[in-house]
Amino acid sequence: MPRYRVTLEYDGGPFAGWQRQENGPSVQGALEEAIFKLSGERVTVTGAGRTDAGVHAYGQVAHLDLEKEFAPGKVRDALNYHLKPAPIAVLSADIVAAEFHARFSAAARHYLYRILCRRAPPVLDRGRVWHIMRQLDASAMEAAAQYLVGQHDFTTFRSSECQAKSPVKTLDKIEVRPAAGEIHIECKARSFLHNQVRSMVGSLKLVGEGKWRPEDLQGALNAKDRAACGPVALPEGLYLVRVDY
Amino acid sequence: MPRYRVTLEYDGGPFAGWQRQENGPSVQGALEEAIFKLSGERVTVTGAGRTDAGVHAYGQVAHLDLEKEFAPGKVRDALNYHLKPAPIAVLSADIVAAEFHARFSAAARHYLYRILCRRAPPVLDRGRVWHIMRQLDASAMEAAAQYLVGQHDFTTFRSSECQAKSPVKTLDKIEVRPAAGEIHIECKARSFLHNQVRSMVGSLKLVGEGKWRPEDLQGALNAKDRAACGPVALPEGLYLVRVDY
Repeated sequence: MPRYRVTLEYDGGPFAGWQRQENGPSVQGALEEAIFKLSGERVTVTGAGRTDAGVHAYGQVAHLDLEKEFAPGKVRDALNYHLKPAPIAVLSADIVAAEFHARFSAAARHYLYRILCRRAPPVLDRGRVWHIMRQLDASAMEAAAQYLVGQHDFTTFRSSECQAKSPVKTLDKIEVRPAAGEIHIECKARSFLHNQVRSMVGSLKLVGEGKWRPEDLQGALNAKDRAACGPVALPEGLYLVRVDY
Repeated sequence: MPRYRVTLEYDGGPFAGWQRQENGPSVQGALEEAIFKLSGERVTVTGAGRTDAGVHAYGQVAHLDLEKEFAPGKVRDALNYHLKPAPIAVLSADIVAAEFHARFSAAARHYLYRILCRRAPPVLDRGRVWHIMRQLDASAMEAAAQYLVGQHDFTTFRSSECQAKSPVKTLDKIEVRPAAGEIHIECKARSFLHNQVRSMVGSLKLVGEGKWRPEDLQGALNAKDRAACGPVALPEGLYLVRVDY
């Protein structure tokens, strides 16, 4: 019974999120349907990150077990065939050891957040960026972001619906940089709390607008209080870029 | 009677092209409607490049004359408001001298062509790239492309419907380079023949696949014969990036 690891790109726009659910299409559900069309088996696909409604992926990783053994290239191509027209693509498929677990074996997750700063609405990147109609101070945002690096109680930046046992996480990296009319925010950690990246970005935007000083972000972190968080950033600017094992 | 210069981004997907026409929505037509909603005037908008159906723009330039004078920022914001939900954005608007002509004053046009090389279909960039299911040899394509630089009779790379008086054009630059799983082809010239970029890219793809040697591209150019051209590249990978004046 081989275990397959698949790497996925998807447009989160039409989905109610990664996780299979009653009230709308999910990435997981679409994959499980495509697998059924390939092999006739009803399986559960386990993803590295349970991305929210509207959040995109360049490199989500998932695993699944099949009774039948198919060549990995066949799994990739057949799933891409059966997934159409859903905006999900299987970039690669590999047979892995039975111990491999997409979620629990992950050593690091990399996220990118894109903010488009201009008066005109996004057109070629509609649904792919958070559109802010004014310029943001990327240097101030970068300075503020560094307060978040390291091990902290991230209660302030955690959804009230977060199911993690502890609010303590270690943020390995957060970088804010201007990129061709946009501001890109890159984060890396072993794992994140629910809504953590969007909560951090929403507060960093207040720093970029000059409404908060960089030190105010540290104050918000130290408050360990969800009420101290800025408005959460939109899902459409967020990408799960890569998962390391 | 002020003349306005506008810089435009658009997704060419839903349009039958730049030019106003009977059989489908056009970028020019959508802009002229938005201008009517702003000022009540029926005007003609003149674009620097008459992009084909499906071709995108990051920086198309156009001019228009209005009886009424509006602040340029008001023109930009009002047109963006009235253009919705069409995927066209006015990035900037400026009042220019009456002599300025978007098409005839242009000193150079810059185009980008994006090819995505992988088995899996494009998802986040669906409709934004030409999808080729195999790897292409970018070095061979770059070597071949250099035969096209300079002044030549580009009859081979010209649509049979091209209305230009002469097939002789000067290609200032063409660069082929790998870019994160894609191949990007950048071209610069004062002006291009109809379908010239897509015709050149279609032939370069044959070089990238190893079906043509780089020298075969020179042979095709020297043939001055439309029949010597490779299959024309899809419109969805082409972008009018910038116009210099």
